[in-house]
Amino acid sequence: MKVSILGGGGFLGRRVAERLAASGMLGGRAVTGLTLFDIAAPPCPAAGFAVNGIAGDIAALPAAAIPPGTDVVFHLAAVVSAAAEADYELGRRVNLRGTDAVIDACRALVAAGGRPPRVVFTSSVASFSGGQAAMLDDAARQVPANSYGAQKAAAELLLADATRRGFMDAVSLRLPTIIVRPGRPNKAASSFFSAIVREPLLGLEAELPVPDDFKVWVGSPNSAVAWLLHAAAIDSRPLGLDRSLNLPGLSVTVGAIIAALDQVRQGASARVVRRPDPAIAAIVGGWPAGFTAARARALGFAPNEGLVDLVRAFVADDLEATRRDRALP
Amino acid sequence: MKVSILGGGGFLGRRVAERLAASGMLGGRAVTGLTLFDIAAPPCPAAGFAVNGIAGDIAALPAAAIPPGTDVVFHLAAVVSAAAEADYELGRRVNLRGTDAVIDACRALVAAGGRPPRVVFTSSVASFSGGQAAMLDDAARQVPANSYGAQKAAAELLLADATRRGFMDAVSLRLPTIIVRPGRPNKAASSFFSAIVREPLLGLEAELPVPDDFKVWVGSPNSAVAWLLHAAAIDSRPLGLDRSLNLPGLSVTVGAIIAALDQVRQGASARVVRRPDPAIAAIVGGWPAGFTAARARALGFAPNEGLVDLVRAFVADDLEATRRDRALP
Repeated sequence: MKVSILGGGGFLGRRVAERLAASGMLGGRAVTGLTLFDIAAPPCPAAGFAVNGIAGDIAALPAAAIPPGTDVVFHLAAVVSAAAEADYELGRRVNLRGTDAVIDACRALVAAGGRPPRVVFTSSVASFSGGQAAMLDDAARQVPANSYGAQKAAAELLLADATRRGFMDAVSLRLPTIIVRPGRPNKAASSFFSAIVREPLLGLEAELPVPDDFKVWVGSPNSAVAWLLHAAAIDSRPLGLDRSLNLPGLSVTVGAIIAALDQVRQGASARVVRRPDPAIAAIVGGWPAGFTAARARALGFAPNEGLVDLVRAFVADDLEATRRDRALP
Repeated sequence: MKVSILGGGGFLGRRVAERLAASGMLGGRAVTGLTLFDIAAPPCPAAGFAVNGIAGDIAALPAAAIPPGTDVVFHLAAVVSAAAEADYELGRRVNLRGTDAVIDACRALVAAGGRPPRVVFTSSVASFSGGQAAMLDDAARQVPANSYGAQKAAAELLLADATRRGFMDAVSLRLPTIIVRPGRPNKAASSFFSAIVREPLLGLEAELPVPDDFKVWVGSPNSAVAWLLHAAAIDSRPLGLDRSLNLPGLSVTVGAIIAALDQVRQGASARVVRRPDPAIAAIVGGWPAGFTAARARALGFAPNEGLVDLVRAFVADDLEATRRDRALP
């Protein structure tokens, strides 16, 4: 089967590409070709099949990004929350016009006689509001409190409609806040959820802008990759018109994250500095604290591993590479 | 106050324009200028203030359509259900790119130092599914079963986000199926709901493609105009992030519409011809049969008049003009 990853140079895109390259399989079928598309040509992992890296603008998607015969498209290309908030036009261009371009590319394949490709799209918990009291079920409306979330929710609607029309076979995954991200702290409001684990493990301080009893809906990088691969292979017919899924993440307190950190590396949490930040608390405080995710569970999406395993996986998979990338001792 | 009506040549746009021209007032304030925009220059009613008609493409909205100092924009321009289903690109262009153009125009006014204009947008019951069994409350998710509904729901998200960002002050009204429309049968799948009243009153046959016990959520032209004018004047702060309203229409059976027709003009329903049409039934059969509309009621949107009054209003306001326009005896 032929696979394209749009946003193939990003955090999740690279991991999906590496997994496909390593296993050579997706949903029990052999991968025969992989196209990686991003704003800069993504790194191409060594694989037992052709891997093609392409650079370009998602809103002017080149036909080669989703070549004829493509079976699965991972549409992960996005301008994330803080950036879409800072630059309205950029967010609209990438998150909406980019999705229209993906629809048009798939539609062209179908018009030329091809099968509608499975499109696995990453939407987000940020498309919801409701706050700390909210434990949302699958019927919950998306009332976004940020442009990124509004654009993701609108893109879900367009992909579901494109699916109904036979242009594609879309499955949209509303990812939780992903922890622990490798790399550095950034200006994203959610950056601290990863930083309070990653930075202490690197011997550095991390600021905590919310109280310890603050609740957050999280998923691990490993679960996110597993969910993406599962979404590429499920029988999508039970989804009907509603092609979007809330995933079985973890509803946890910041205090529980810190406790898991200490369980993996005793005393590490001494480097977590409580520094309340009302601006950050206001943004992340609008996100719902959890989802029932009953539909995704019924469709075989595996529950996220527990917090201690999640921290251990970061130590095993990403800690040393992060230390090296950041030239830390 | 300065008012723009986009889609000012359409069925509802012309009525809103006539009402403003006749009263000279909107929400207790004097209207000082009216701009009517449509694909062909709309007719300009005589008024005690300047009325300007402009023709153009909503997706390439000329700045003159929403001039500096505009207080209220009625954004009624749309490609309707059957047309958006038949021509995907046209629907996307008008219903989505057109809405983006309205956002950009309002944003430009604000960037130049103006107040964010109130934007009253017509969304639709067609943005929901659920079918005959559904009586939806205000928390119900939009899971559209047609491109028109998907585009309307996506546009609502973009307008709510533009409101949150301060580009405008949007109120989106999810209009029920409007009956009785004057004129001729048109491309909307819902066209027959009006035709089964209008055509018999004109002495003509009308085809009924669904059973008599088919339930439909309707509103009258008079209620639609009243709701649009009310939406232009309400205090929008109680809406918070969710700028969309389900309106207090009527949940009725087709049989009840036909009975009201006979009550107003005895025996008229003999001209309703039962001719099942699975394609039309499939589209309208996906729309929910009713809404609680609690939020709109609390905000002072008046309940729709009853069916007999609704048919009488068509006879009083539109029947002779329709006969004349269609050159019927």
